[in-house]
Amino acid sequence: MTLSNGRRKGMRLAELSERSGVPIPTVKYYLRERLLPPGHRISATQAEYDEGHLRRLRLVRALIQVGRIPVATAREVVAAVADEGLDPHARLGAAVWAIPHGAEPDEDDPATETARRTADALLEQLGWTFGREVGAQSPAYRMVVSGIATMVRLGYPCGTGQLLPYARSAAELGVADLDLVEQYEPGEEQVEAAVALTVLYEPVLLGLRRLAQAEESRRRFG
Amino acid sequence: MTLSNGRRKGMRLAELSERSGVPIPTVKYYLRERLLPPGHRISATQAEYDEGHLRRLRLVRALIQVGRIPVATAREVVAAVADEGLDPHARLGAAVWAIPHGAEPDEDDPATETARRTADALLEQLGWTFGREVGAQSPAYRMVVSGIATMVRLGYPCGTGQLLPYARSAAELGVADLDLVEQYEPGEEQVEAAVALTVLYEPVLLGLRRLAQAEESRRRFG
Repeated sequence: MTLSNGRRKGMRLAELSERSGVPIPTVKYYLRERLLPPGHRISATQAEYDEGHLRRLRLVRALIQVGRIPVATAREVVAAVADEGLDPHARLGAAVWAIPHGAEPDEDDPATETARRTADALLEQLGWTFGREVGAQSPAYRMVVSGIATMVRLGYPCGTGQLLPYARSAAELGVADLDLVEQYEPGEEQVEAAVALTVLYEPVLLGLRRLAQAEESRRRFG
Repeated sequence: MTLSNGRRKGMRLAELSERSGVPIPTVKYYLRERLLPPGHRISATQAEYDEGHLRRLRLVRALIQVGRIPVATAREVVAAVADEGLDPHARLGAAVWAIPHGAEPDEDDPATETARRTADALLEQLGWTFGREVGAQSPAYRMVVSGIATMVRLGYPCGTGQLLPYARSAAELGVADLDLVEQYEPGEEQVEAAVALTVLYEPVLLGLRRLAQAEESRRRFG
């Protein structure tokens, strides 16, 4: 774990807990589970923690509490975040890929093939070359295919015509996400923020969508 | 349950299963759990089902399989959908409100008060009067407050400045949602579609957002 702001005065466990809002027993649990690296030993019984520990703790909390990600998976996400052997784009991608993406597409279902053709046509229309190149390897792509396949199977409308407005909004969300991420120090701090904000903004976004539906419904039918 | 397309030739259980892609034992389970109304008896041992049953079955499947909503809650959503004593806007609202909205805000946490002020300022800026009037009673509003409070608590940026681009995208999503919903027959059919599409588009939207992030990351850092 690197310390981008240089070495600051260390924190004791109580301060780490207070500044993160994570209860002390939970912090101890994350330390035992190696979701947090050990503190710097200052005596036989005491350790100190730094800003890097605080940032990591916030990320882990976001993953487990909001993302409801199992501890073992959170450990994999944290490992991807800490991997320094990649360029910034690949590192960001690897960390976000490590976040769980929900149901996998059912390969035995003909609806999955239809969904894959729809997703490919959509990416083509959007000119999202990255998505197209990476294709089936990308968990986000599989998440989209699985979601479309469910709608195909149940007979709900989800051709490119229906999906395009959602994809255009998603493109704007991607810009907003990266604008936030770029406010962080490049390197580990930025990757941690990218993962945390991906997870933390999900319930906010879904809640705002339901509020927007109510607002739009009132406008049309109210 | 109403039959908007008039009485068509009834379906047997096997056809209901085939047209919905839901396995026969699962359909029987939904019938036992009163998530589906009973079929029309045609003999001592046989019953027939209609288009209304098929639509309801698709909705229930969306709620339980994609929304991961418990059976008891799905039963409440279905009851809200079937409630004919409301105007279209109120009926749509009641049905979407009955869908679970995730974590409730923690009222003992000062971060919740900060989050509520942020959410109110955001709705004010957007001119979402419906959201503002309904306020604390709306589960979507509480979902947004809870999500913002988590970010406040963990020290991630989430003032109105950060949230506004997300809310503007949500507004577009609300329009896309209602455009889809208006393609259905007003009444029960429309309400069923609104609930199903709210749930079914969530994983697609979150997947598209992650693809858009990758695309935007490649553009900036790739």
